Amino acid sequence: MDGLSRLQAIRHSKTFEIFIITIIIASALLVGIKTYDMPQSVVQILRVMDWLITSIFVVEISIRFIAEKKKINFFRSGWNLFDTLIVCISLIPIENTDMALVARLIRVFRVMRMVSVIPELRMLLNSLLIALPRLGYVMALMFIIFYIYAAVGSLFFEDINPDLWGDIAISMLTLFRVMTFEDWTDVMYETMAVYGWSWIFFVSFIFLTAFAFLNMVIGIVVNVLEEEHQKELELDPNYVSIEDLRDEIAELKTIMVNRFPGS
Amino acid sequence: MDGLSRLQAIRHSKTFEIFIITIIIASALLVGIKTYDMPQSVVQILRVMDWLITSIFVVEISIRFIAEKKKINFFRSGWNLFDTLIVCISLIPIENTDMALVARLIRVFRVMRMVSVIPELRMLLNSLLIALPRLGYVMALMFIIFYIYAAVGSLFFEDINPDLWGDIAISMLTLFRVMTFEDWTDVMYETMAVYGWSWIFFVSFIFLTAFAFLNMVIGIVVNVLEEEHQKELELDPNYVSIEDLRDEIAELKTIMVNRFPGS
Amino acid sequence: MDGLSRLQAIRHSKTFEIFIITIIIASALLVGIKTYDMPQSVVQILRVMDWLITSIFVVEISIRFIAEKKKINFFRSGWNLFDTLIVCISLIPIENTDMALVARLIRVFRVMRMVSVIPELRMLLNSLLIALPRLGYVMALMFIIFYIYAAVGSLFFEDINPDLWGDIAISMLTLFRVMTFEDWTDVMYETMAVYGWSWIFFVSFIFLTAFAFLNMVIGIVVNVLEEEHQKELELDPNYVSIEDLRDEIAELKTIMVNRFPGS
Amino acid sequence: MDGLSRLQAIRHSKTFEIFIITIIIASALLVGIKTYDMPQSVVQILRVMDWLITSIFVVEISIRFIAEKKKINFFRSGWNLFDTLIVCISLIPIENTDMALVARLIRVFRVMRMVSVIPELRMLLNSLLIALPRLGYVMALMFIIFYIYAAVGSLFFEDINPDLWGDIAISMLTLFRVMTFEDWTDVMYETMAVYGWSWIFFVSFIFLTAFAFLNMVIGIVVNVLEEEHQKELELDPNYVSIEDLRDEIAELKTIMVNRFPGS
Repeated sequence: MDGLSRLQAIRHSKTFEIFIITIIIASALLVGIKTYDMPQSVVQILRVMDWLITSIFVVEISIRFIAEKKKINFFRSGWNLFDTLIVCISLIPIENTDMALVARLIRVFRVMRMVSVIPELRMLLNSLLIALPRLGYVMALMFIIFYIYAAVGSLFFEDINPDLWGDIAISMLTLFRVMTFEDWTDVMYETMAVYGWSWIFFVSFIFLTAFAFLNMVIGIVVNVLEEEHQKELELDPNYVSIEDLRDEIAELKTIMVNRFPGS
Repeated sequence: MDGLSRLQAIRHSKTFEIFIITIIIASALLVGIKTYDMPQSVVQILRVMDWLITSIFVVEISIRFIAEKKKINFFRSGWNLFDTLIVCISLIPIENTDMALVARLIRVFRVMRMVSVIPELRMLLNSLLIALPRLGYVMALMFIIFYIYAAVGSLFFEDINPDLWGDIAISMLTLFRVMTFEDWTDVMYETMAVYGWSWIFFVSFIFLTAFAFLNMVIGIVVNVLEEEHQKELELDPNYVSIEDLRDEIAELKTIMVNRFPGS
Repeated sequence: MDGLSRLQAIRHSKTFEIFIITIIIASALLVGIKTYDMPQSVVQILRVMDWLITSIFVVEISIRFIAEKKKINFFRSGWNLFDTLIVCISLIPIENTDMALVARLIRVFRVMRMVSVIPELRMLLNSLLIALPRLGYVMALMFIIFYIYAAVGSLFFEDINPDLWGDIAISMLTLFRVMTFEDWTDVMYETMAVYGWSWIFFVSFIFLTAFAFLNMVIGIVVNVLEEEHQKELELDPNYVSIEDLRDEIAELKTIMVNRFPGS
Repeated sequence: MDGLSRLQAIRHSKTFEIFIITIIIASALLVGIKTYDMPQSVVQILRVMDWLITSIFVVEISIRFIAEKKKINFFRSGWNLFDTLIVCISLIPIENTDMALVARLIRVFRVMRMVSVIPELRMLLNSLLIALPRLGYVMALMFIIFYIYAAVGSLFFEDINPDLWGDIAISMLTLFRVMTFEDWTDVMYETMAVYGWSWIFFVSFIFLTAFAFLNMVIGIVVNVLEEEHQKELELDPNYVSIEDLRDEIAELKTIMVNRFPGS
């Protein structure tokens, strides 16, 4: 067994996978621990562990890259690119510079490697992402509703409370808050003190967005479920559709007509 | 190619559609930009752009009107009427008068032309509107629940807090707030200080409306989905219903009985 | 045409129904108007209108009672009993006594006659009530969860804030508030100041009730929908079940076997 | 009839079940009553009743244990173990020691015996628990999202408000609060004062969790419902699947081909 096939065996072994998941969990714990205040000695140990984890990740990515037969395929997977990028950036020694914050942020994003390594999580995320494009037009409609209400709100309420209605961006954030019902009556009572009719603005907005939102989310979820159910049925080798039955009956009729050609 | 058919070609071309959508987006951005404070020079430029957009809209509506063979059909579409109305009103020079606010409001509503121009958004809005009439009786029931609770609330709690329970309209707004769970306990604790039993009023109201609301919304959405699924199935040329199968089998039986008439 | 059949004709006429609905709406408006402050003259007019409406209701109930062939059937309908009760009580002259509040309350409940008179609303309410018994055991489970958490909460947090955790009834109200997410963190932070672990109490409670609640409501609604769909299918005279198909095929087999008994 | 079979008859009698449920309800009421302040005499009575209930529970568990033929089966049921444990611990005389709180807590958990005794509640809880493992990976994904956002939040916002973002555990609790929309804008406005872009952090988090949560819950519920529907269909002795129909038709074809072997 030459070096390459040995690497491939390692790369696809269960032990390798479990080891890497353990390292990612350790890296996640490290991120968590760092949010607590600790004595200098522990910080020292954590630094060493961090350096160790980075090294293991470099080795892991290298193994996966070398074990790939066609090198180009490696870069075709978005997850591989993500892994490589995260590991490469964490190699840059910026920890003690002005960009220490970026270094810590990169370490946080290493937790996302959990998703890239565990196939079930990768599939789950993909299924969520597949549902997104269907949202396209509904999101556009929601955005238009938000934009119009924000423009109207900014037009009338700017002088009442510039912190909430100062420009169209802030107004949209305020409307998002109203959509989540978060202290929306405080916002409303403030504007009602000046414009008595302004409850119509808020109540109609809540009706529109709540209705559109519910409609959208439930619609998509039920749709996805139906499709999966259909897919499952069709993958079942014993599955018989009504169309198959029709064909069977048609065949039966042909046999009969052929054997007794108008006796 | 004469003038009319050239206009019709323009009106149905993809380029024309994309150009108009671009102009509507520009008009929407203008509305957004105007909510920010800006130097006088930029305001001057925006005014010119606004004038330009209005002119383009006038030309567009004219093309669409002239390209229509039967002029009466143009006015039969609600969206055409909406577009024409919006454009006509924005032509009136009221910007520097007392009605400047109306002028700005009209410009905001021009963003809704996005819906009238993009067919997918128009369909989406239609499908939402179709779901509304089904709500008719449930809305009526909800309104009756609100009205009765508002009347009872106004009767008992008016003296406790006239800002929340002063008359039936304000009481209904307060109850809408309770339905969205927005600081509803503040409202309740205030009345409980006087009437200890008043938690029954609020808890029963929340149960009634939450249950009715959920029941209603999910009911409608699932209903609409089922219908669309059914429609899809029936549009599929390969679709075979169980009824079709029954007919096939009946035909087979007839053939058999005919060929062997009781041998 | 004698008096009785004339009364029956009136009772089932569309005009009579519309007239009664109009009177109920007027009665509802009266209830609403009374929540506003008004000059003495208007109050006088309202009193007359109220007296008029009560009289019309008495006449209406009388017509419906006399028009009923078997008098006992009249009292078998819960709605009739409700209508009669409401009208009878509003006849008692308690308006200027200590019980004036009760008199006003009865007038509010007259708005509910809307449901008893419009058949579609009556059906809708019935369908909501049908869904309730299914909730029986889930409600019991929810109540047990609430009771246990309220007892634990009262045990540990009573000294922290007796207004929220004083006894088991107040604790359950506080937990209902937590379930609706209404300022629940204020309640939690207060207890966390004494018992650091108490976030587990709140987070686990929210998970349990949210999950159980969602499970319950969606379960019931989808269930009801499926049953209605099934009912619809079976009412369709053209409906063919797979069972029917099986019988058809079995019959075909019998014909064949009978005509060619083992040739 | 010997002693054992008499015990078994008692154990499975309806009277025994109803008696035990009554005792559990009494025990639950006792727990509730104890949260109120009461005169010493009533406390004395409650103590006696508590002692009585404990005795009855001991007798009940003993009957159920003795009536079991194979003693090992008794301990195989989780509910039996739970009942025995609860009853045994409540026998320990710790009421007047430092652990009085534990004694009271145990009495609260006796209310959960309601679930173990009423079969319908036991089934309901089981069906909720069955749905949990499916949540496994979605819960993992949600936890990763929470963990990453909590790490980022702790990294940037720790200095702004250590009470909300002090370490990763507190940050996760704060994010849970944001997910329930509980005063989330207060949290956001506080961080926006320092980092203007931080609304992206909150809005994206709300979108991610709300979408994932809804997706998850509805997905599971609809799934469970479909399976139950399928199970019901298959338990129906008259149920005919499309596969059965295919077999019937195939049989018919065989009969025909056999009787007329290529005439």
